[in-house]
Amino acid sequence: MSEVGRLYGLGIGPGDPELLTLKAHRILTSVPVIAYPTLENGKALARAIVADFIRPEQQEIPMPLPFSVQRSSQPYYDLGAEKIAAHLSAGRDVAVLCEGEPMLYGSFMYLFQRLAPRFPTEVVPGISSTFASAAMLGVPITFRNDVLSIMPATLEADQLRDRLQGVDAAVIIKLGRHFSKVRDILGELGLLERALYIERATQPSQRIIPIQDLNPEEATYWALILIPSQTQPR
Amino acid sequence: MSEVGRLYGLGIGPGDPELLTLKAHRILTSVPVIAYPTLENGKALARAIVADFIRPEQQEIPMPLPFSVQRSSQPYYDLGAEKIAAHLSAGRDVAVLCEGEPMLYGSFMYLFQRLAPRFPTEVVPGISSTFASAAMLGVPITFRNDVLSIMPATLEADQLRDRLQGVDAAVIIKLGRHFSKVRDILGELGLLERALYIERATQPSQRIIPIQDLNPEEATYWALILIPSQTQPR
Repeated sequence: MSEVGRLYGLGIGPGDPELLTLKAHRILTSVPVIAYPTLENGKALARAIVADFIRPEQQEIPMPLPFSVQRSSQPYYDLGAEKIAAHLSAGRDVAVLCEGEPMLYGSFMYLFQRLAPRFPTEVVPGISSTFASAAMLGVPITFRNDVLSIMPATLEADQLRDRLQGVDAAVIIKLGRHFSKVRDILGELGLLERALYIERATQPSQRIIPIQDLNPEEATYWALILIPSQTQPR
Repeated sequence: MSEVGRLYGLGIGPGDPELLTLKAHRILTSVPVIAYPTLENGKALARAIVADFIRPEQQEIPMPLPFSVQRSSQPYYDLGAEKIAAHLSAGRDVAVLCEGEPMLYGSFMYLFQRLAPRFPTEVVPGISSTFASAAMLGVPITFRNDVLSIMPATLEADQLRDRLQGVDAAVIIKLGRHFSKVRDILGELGLLERALYIERATQPSQRIIPIQDLNPEEATYWALILIPSQTQPR
């Protein structure tokens, strides 16, 4: 009787390797196979975060993903899922490295949809940069009855304006080339004074810059704007 | 020359002790003083989560907090802050245990406001139950251009209805005695079929119950409803 392997979606946090959970660390250091997305230039941020924990005898599955919106990424996930499925079918556990939290805007979710119906699957939550940024900026996000809105900067300007109107607290992720659009809308809505910019939170290259000092062309995809609550505690 | 101690706001996650980060574990097991909130009956959930990591020689500061909305909690935080300040002034590092993520609806934030201006302070992000619930429920939260709204069930019905109208994805926390109100509003808005209920996520007593099967009087404060995105990947 042959048993199939177990699939792990491993949240590895926003960048500081010490922000792995004890559970993610245990699984990462014990599975025979590790899979992770790579950019078209071969760079693999998720792997770089945990590089010190990976042992030479562990097998690795780099999964190239297109980070261009022009192309469908589905064939890439199909291919990655099949590579992973081959290991699982052979009885080997596979951990997929997921930056931040696997279930939140994560590329793992596309593998999850393909593989969870076929193999035993466990998702290990990770520290999301959306919240870790608050710790790095030193500001509470929400108090008491506040509502928090998390949204990608890739939304159309009208939708962004609509979603940001009257927010208690907000996090706007994936800034990159959308930075100027977001900054202008925050200005229109009177939110710019409260807005805080941070990129690569918890990574060695983390930067916190006053929004008015930022050259829009420097804003990266790995940057976000946090608008903390104004609620006063009582 | 005497040096003051360092204050840590330590995110310890939603309940599974293995969901502490490596960093939180390192700090927790090395500081001389640990502080944590307690209910009026003396129960301390945060302490219970990490009980196996605490050593007898570590000093403990239980901080009673009123979990009743009728009373202001500010005098309790004043008192807790002064107890902590006494240790910090004497040069001892203090770690405050925070369930979930310290900066998100956390009681730590009230200590942070009082102590961070006076003492070196570091916040260590933790796994929030708002996201960990998705892993336990086995559902992705948000894809691509989705907006995620996180809100407390304690909002007035009109505000809840307003905030939930047309959401892409939502997490409604602190259900408790507000469960029926939330369920009725989700029904009105056509969101009930997508809504998933989970309580005490990742704790040994975790329960996942179909909403229609839940006795409203059983809903706890430590329960939430997740409405996952309907966006189809492409």
